[in-house]
Amino acid sequence: MSDAKMAMVNAFDAEAASDLSAADRALIERRARLLGPAYRLFYEKPVHFVRGEGVWLFDPEGQAYLDVYNNVASVGHSHPAVVEAVSRQMAVLNTHTRYLTDGVLDYAEALLATMPPALGHVMFTCTGSEANDLALRIARHHTGGTGLIVTETAYHGVTSVLAEASPSLGPNMPRSPLVRMVPPPRAEGRDAAVVGAEFAAGVKRAIDDLAAHGIKPAALLVDTIFSSDGVRADPPGFLQEAAQVIRVAGGLFIADEVQPGFGRTGAAMWGFMRHGVLPDLVTMGKPMGNGFPVAGMAARPEILESFGRDLRYFNTFGGNPVAAAAGLAVLGVIRDEGLMENAARVGAQIKAGLETLATRYPAIGAVRGAGLFVAADILEEGRPSATLAARIVNGLRARRVLISASGPRGHVLKIRPPLPFSSENAALFLEQTEAVLALI
Amino acid sequence: MSDAKMAMVNAFDAEAASDLSAADRALIERRARLLGPAYRLFYEKPVHFVRGEGVWLFDPEGQAYLDVYNNVASVGHSHPAVVEAVSRQMAVLNTHTRYLTDGVLDYAEALLATMPPALGHVMFTCTGSEANDLALRIARHHTGGTGLIVTETAYHGVTSVLAEASPSLGPNMPRSPLVRMVPPPRAEGRDAAVVGAEFAAGVKRAIDDLAAHGIKPAALLVDTIFSSDGVRADPPGFLQEAAQVIRVAGGLFIADEVQPGFGRTGAAMWGFMRHGVLPDLVTMGKPMGNGFPVAGMAARPEILESFGRDLRYFNTFGGNPVAAAAGLAVLGVIRDEGLMENAARVGAQIKAGLETLATRYPAIGAVRGAGLFVAADILEEGRPSATLAARIVNGLRARRVLISASGPRGHVLKIRPPLPFSSENAALFLEQTEAVLALI
Repeated sequence: MSDAKMAMVNAFDAEAASDLSAADRALIERRARLLGPAYRLFYEKPVHFVRGEGVWLFDPEGQAYLDVYNNVASVGHSHPAVVEAVSRQMAVLNTHTRYLTDGVLDYAEALLATMPPALGHVMFTCTGSEANDLALRIARHHTGGTGLIVTETAYHGVTSVLAEASPSLGPNMPRSPLVRMVPPPRAEGRDAAVVGAEFAAGVKRAIDDLAAHGIKPAALLVDTIFSSDGVRADPPGFLQEAAQVIRVAGGLFIADEVQPGFGRTGAAMWGFMRHGVLPDLVTMGKPMGNGFPVAGMAARPEILESFGRDLRYFNTFGGNPVAAAAGLAVLGVIRDEGLMENAARVGAQIKAGLETLATRYPAIGAVRGAGLFVAADILEEGRPSATLAARIVNGLRARRVLISASGPRGHVLKIRPPLPFSSENAALFLEQTEAVLALI
Repeated sequence: MSDAKMAMVNAFDAEAASDLSAADRALIERRARLLGPAYRLFYEKPVHFVRGEGVWLFDPEGQAYLDVYNNVASVGHSHPAVVEAVSRQMAVLNTHTRYLTDGVLDYAEALLATMPPALGHVMFTCTGSEANDLALRIARHHTGGTGLIVTETAYHGVTSVLAEASPSLGPNMPRSPLVRMVPPPRAEGRDAAVVGAEFAAGVKRAIDDLAAHGIKPAALLVDTIFSSDGVRADPPGFLQEAAQVIRVAGGLFIADEVQPGFGRTGAAMWGFMRHGVLPDLVTMGKPMGNGFPVAGMAARPEILESFGRDLRYFNTFGGNPVAAAAGLAVLGVIRDEGLMENAARVGAQIKAGLETLATRYPAIGAVRGAGLFVAADILEEGRPSATLAARIVNGLRARRVLISASGPRGHVLKIRPPLPFSSENAALFLEQTEAVLALI
């Protein structure tokens, strides 16, 4: 396998593939011919999907796969309320924000109502990458600084400046001299004040190192559930001190809510609220339109002031009436179907189930997470094992259960289903996981 | 008016607004409260739209506005074929490119079939900004260079690196030390070889200046119709020498087709084809999904090779089945409704009509363009006049005809309707333009 494929957890490797069907092999070749070499598939044996419904994806033979991974179709695949909202609005009007339209304002109002009042404005982009890139532009303009602090295995997006600040893209990705990486928070049974002080001390060291190189910090940018750092949710509160430290140094605290946002943690609509911390800028994406490309950034008004005065922002498709309709429908479904409460309840069930499995299978180490974002460390002889994690991920795939792995050493199971995941779905997932564990 | 609003052609200025209705004033205030200060509206008196159909947009009173400006709803507002394709696909499956799906490959094949065979791969993003940003990442990785050459009033997007390479965003936007700006091609009745040599000489000077600062060039990035430089379409062929010059220096030639692409010039699906030049990378966006957020980048396979080997690219929503369905529907409509041929025919009618008006109204100077992208310089006492251009743009808006202005001095009318613009629509536009000219 190439270094770059090694660097991606759960990447398909054509050279190692053996038991592909003729149809899948042809499809993979066609894909490589048309899309080129930069695309990666999941799994030793990739999956081919033709239909999705709720928490299920279906292959061309009509076989159902339990989706325990996808956080984009967060309110469920092909949710009729979102399909209808998009279809209806597309047939009526789809234009941009340099004309007055009502939908974007109705959506902005509903979205801001889910946040603390201090976050008074929201701006719309099409992707989480664009949202983080915009947040960085605004942070740099507001603070006059250029330095950026992220965690050691962070992922924040694919634009030029974000890829350079996303060490999870692997060692071949050049790092920017303006970026510093800090260790993610490590709970290990300690309380929030201790974990928070340790994390903040890392941020302080990064600030000092930037200063030693003559670089003023613009921002500390963190995914508030530290997804690619192996999922670090607890103990709630550990973000507060670091947010304080970056502000004292003149930088902003940016909460990347692309993964924890929209109720996934079960405890609050936004990951930062779970930590009782108020960010200067908040970015969001993936689940925002249930797959319709919509993303955005909320801001404390005082942070936007100079950017809005000196510059402007226009995103051709950002905040268009169809995107707004998709976003508003998603908020409605989360509320009407009680999905945040469901995430709390079913997430706790999954966590407890994995903890029980851990008592019987030494391959399962620590179990972490919040709501329907659960992680389990996979160990072999007590040590982190990406190989064993990959065997579990691929073993589940063979049983038509979709999860993946992540973390700095690729040994962390990533369990992150659509939010309508039921108690029965969770029981099936745990049952299949146990069946795989029993075989390895 | 603030400097930043001065820097944007046709920006609404709340301080100067007088005759707004109470409803519009309330809507504008609500918008500022929710979206903050970085958003800009068009026109002295903004327009509020609630419905779009074909080449018409409708305000809340049901008044129809002739759309002579919007190139995103390029096959016509709310086109039923696109609405249906998106609605149908959304109800079935919307997932990402790490699973095998068929739609993205069918679309990739159809899209690449509109280009020279040397452009063998296509990658998908959600916005033109993301496409240009990706092209720049790939150019830098492939060449090992970092320098970027653009035109003096270029616009290429809103990500951090692209905003710094988009001088049309105004003087408050910081410039990157890695970017050089060159004068756009100036035809002035001369033949392609002369215009091309002059443009290429500018590029050569920029390469030399980069070299003098120890910077190796990565790319020359140009919008092949030079939209924000005042629309520079003729004479076809003038891009060839510059493409040669950048390659000799080790850089790539990137064609930004976000504006001229998808048949708008009437002469070819892509602006670069009109010039008989083969780019290394081609970026596209705006009209690609008729308003659905889809964009992309085509590449010569050899350019992608090292990027694909050393790194990877994943765009969460990019190339999802719904985006692919939207894109495929747009290609189908362009072909089935003969929209490229229509752009050639009706574009020629508009150009000829404006040239006739120029003989009677000294306010109209040179008329330029290709297909349904037409520009007219506005002069006062023979000199470029942004003030007069603004009066014409706002005069047409009062008559419910939508255009805008652009160019380095804001004096160029930008006439760029949806492609199904008919001969009758063109006649109405010319009639209304004459009525406005007669009054100023």
